[in-house]
Amino acid sequence: MTAISRAAQFAQRTAHLRASTIREMLKVTQQPDVISFGGGLPAPELFPTEAIAQATQRVMERLGSAALQYSVTEGIPEMRIWVAERLTRRCGGIFSAEAVQIVNGSQQGLDLVGKIFLDPGDHVVLEDPSYLGAIQAFDAYQTRYLTVETDEDGLVPESLEEVLERADPFPKFLYLVPNFQNPTGRTLSGRRRETVVRICEHFGLPIVEDDPYGELRFEGTDLPPLLSYRSTAPIIYSGTGSKIMAPGMRIAWLLVQDEAIREKIVLAKQGADLHSGTFAQYVFHEYVSDGDAFDAHVRRIAQTYAHRRGVMAEALAEFMPEGVRFTRPAGGMFLWVTVPNVDTAELLKISAASKVVFVPGVNFYSGRDVHDGMRLNFSNATEKNIRLGVERLAHAIRLYQR
Amino acid sequence: MTAISRAAQFAQRTAHLRASTIREMLKVTQQPDVISFGGGLPAPELFPTEAIAQATQRVMERLGSAALQYSVTEGIPEMRIWVAERLTRRCGGIFSAEAVQIVNGSQQGLDLVGKIFLDPGDHVVLEDPSYLGAIQAFDAYQTRYLTVETDEDGLVPESLEEVLERADPFPKFLYLVPNFQNPTGRTLSGRRRETVVRICEHFGLPIVEDDPYGELRFEGTDLPPLLSYRSTAPIIYSGTGSKIMAPGMRIAWLLVQDEAIREKIVLAKQGADLHSGTFAQYVFHEYVSDGDAFDAHVRRIAQTYAHRRGVMAEALAEFMPEGVRFTRPAGGMFLWVTVPNVDTAELLKISAASKVVFVPGVNFYSGRDVHDGMRLNFSNATEKNIRLGVERLAHAIRLYQR
Repeated sequence: MTAISRAAQFAQRTAHLRASTIREMLKVTQQPDVISFGGGLPAPELFPTEAIAQATQRVMERLGSAALQYSVTEGIPEMRIWVAERLTRRCGGIFSAEAVQIVNGSQQGLDLVGKIFLDPGDHVVLEDPSYLGAIQAFDAYQTRYLTVETDEDGLVPESLEEVLERADPFPKFLYLVPNFQNPTGRTLSGRRRETVVRICEHFGLPIVEDDPYGELRFEGTDLPPLLSYRSTAPIIYSGTGSKIMAPGMRIAWLLVQDEAIREKIVLAKQGADLHSGTFAQYVFHEYVSDGDAFDAHVRRIAQTYAHRRGVMAEALAEFMPEGVRFTRPAGGMFLWVTVPNVDTAELLKISAASKVVFVPGVNFYSGRDVHDGMRLNFSNATEKNIRLGVERLAHAIRLYQR
Repeated sequence: MTAISRAAQFAQRTAHLRASTIREMLKVTQQPDVISFGGGLPAPELFPTEAIAQATQRVMERLGSAALQYSVTEGIPEMRIWVAERLTRRCGGIFSAEAVQIVNGSQQGLDLVGKIFLDPGDHVVLEDPSYLGAIQAFDAYQTRYLTVETDEDGLVPESLEEVLERADPFPKFLYLVPNFQNPTGRTLSGRRRETVVRICEHFGLPIVEDDPYGELRFEGTDLPPLLSYRSTAPIIYSGTGSKIMAPGMRIAWLLVQDEAIREKIVLAKQGADLHSGTFAQYVFHEYVSDGDAFDAHVRRIAQTYAHRRGVMAEALAEFMPEGVRFTRPAGGMFLWVTVPNVDTAELLKISAASKVVFVPGVNFYSGRDVHDGMRLNFSNATEKNIRLGVERLAHAIRLYQR
């Protein structure tokens, strides 16, 4: 159909290439007795349903119609202040509510970043592997990718330097997930954080720092976000309520200190949907504004996921054939398994028949074809199912290897 | 700043050109004793605040965490069914829930339509004058406009035909608001509706039918939407809950019967923000699903606005200098005033000093420079303020004419 835009054609082509195995996986997930490590869902049993109903009641009594009217593009002031204060407390830096843009889930933040930076053919620098949702958001702008190597400590600074030295055209920004990365679960080490900021500063490259899981740390101490280092190159920070409150609220935020960039983000948001839901923002804010209760809630989520991560790691150690390696993330929702000499997209067909699914690693790579990885989600299954699922998966690998 | 995308540069330039008087107007609106006919806000005193708090309570009791989890890109099934059934009842046609895409306010629907159809330099056909929010949404795709004449019966079919005959490049779609148009309040006559559909069918031009006010009819009988005519050229219908329930919910919908187009809309929505808020969708649906109460609510809104429209029309007849003409819309939220030989952007400066504001008509024109129009909103002021505001406005015109 020739009437369709080039961007839509491009997005459809890339989506088809990237997502066919994921669609296959999702189909299988619908079956009742399938154990899915494939999605990225938070544990619904931890959602504060009753507290949200009460928060809504309080909002309606206090604000009435103001909670249902059109509101400003940047977000309601209460939410912007809350985001700035929470980040200030977590990071030690001082962040202003002025710098906050409320968005509909972090996916919209990534889309707006794509919209204001990217022209067809532009380069974006990604970790390899990287978050699939970000790749899909940027694909809509007919983007190409330059990829940087990663290891146990996250993105490798020497590789970033090398990529930037020979990049042509020079990329528009670096996108990375420094804490408990999706898909690998790895964290950019404290030592490397400032190095990465300095390299980007040297080259004048903006950084898009995506931090959906930063508050879900199981052990060790928090590392400063890249945003907390002073830099002449702009850093756009993306945070979300999806993993610490509930994804169905679609409340997330960008923190953009660079005024010229922020102005363009606001304009893009205005054109995209005027503003985020007034109702959802007020209810979200009312719920989180009891700070002690909310902190306790976030701790409970982290403890639950820590336990599930532990169960999954134990089961992997117990059931997997020799040679299989896996990460043991200090937070977040995912771990990464490497099965040498196995094409995990092929493995998925066997494992789906054994009623356990995952996302084949190849979907997360933009730079190289890497077929032996898989992403396992541990936040959305019971401990019993985690053990059973890993056992089935190990069995599927043995079948494949036969 | 060279790192910014061409789309962002274009959007900033056009926004600056179009919106400077609107920004001026909004600044004045902040002052407490200013009467604003400038915005497009529904009457907040009609929002069902207590009913929404109760609906939230019921949703949480019945669905619990399912109302807070990630959900599918197309929208929750309940909402899609409700939209299809309501449109079926209103229009006589038969519409399928499959064809419905839930979006974050109709602005997002327009943005997604822009995203899947428009490349830089592409033409879109607009009524002249046309809705500013649509122009802003399409501007993000570096679009150009072809404009069609309008009269008391809406878009002039002969003018549309003429525009399409000499269009080069051929446009991607026609965008129009057939019922109680924003900004003029005019309605495309019943006789012209099928003619417009047949012209577009003849030329193979898709139609984007934006219908935010269709349910707010004050008098006369409903006219069938363009969507209800069978056509080989695709018709994309846009509806919203903003004017019949509350805009702060950000719940609106596209109805797209063409499967190939719908597939691209879904993909664009997925890249843009994954899905609309699960929480807001369930609460919205719970509220509207008591059909009799909701119908009564919509009637109450229409009756209130009809009364305000009447008060405004009377005041205009009473206070305005000779030669001033105005529309008397059969529904919606706006009427259009023509003040011959007056530049209404200049008039705004005088009227703002007299503490009444409006949107100068020039902002809605893409094809010609028309300076003597103004858009007045009658839904968001009390009857007393409507009379007082019109009196002030008439005074400002006399000052201008001196």
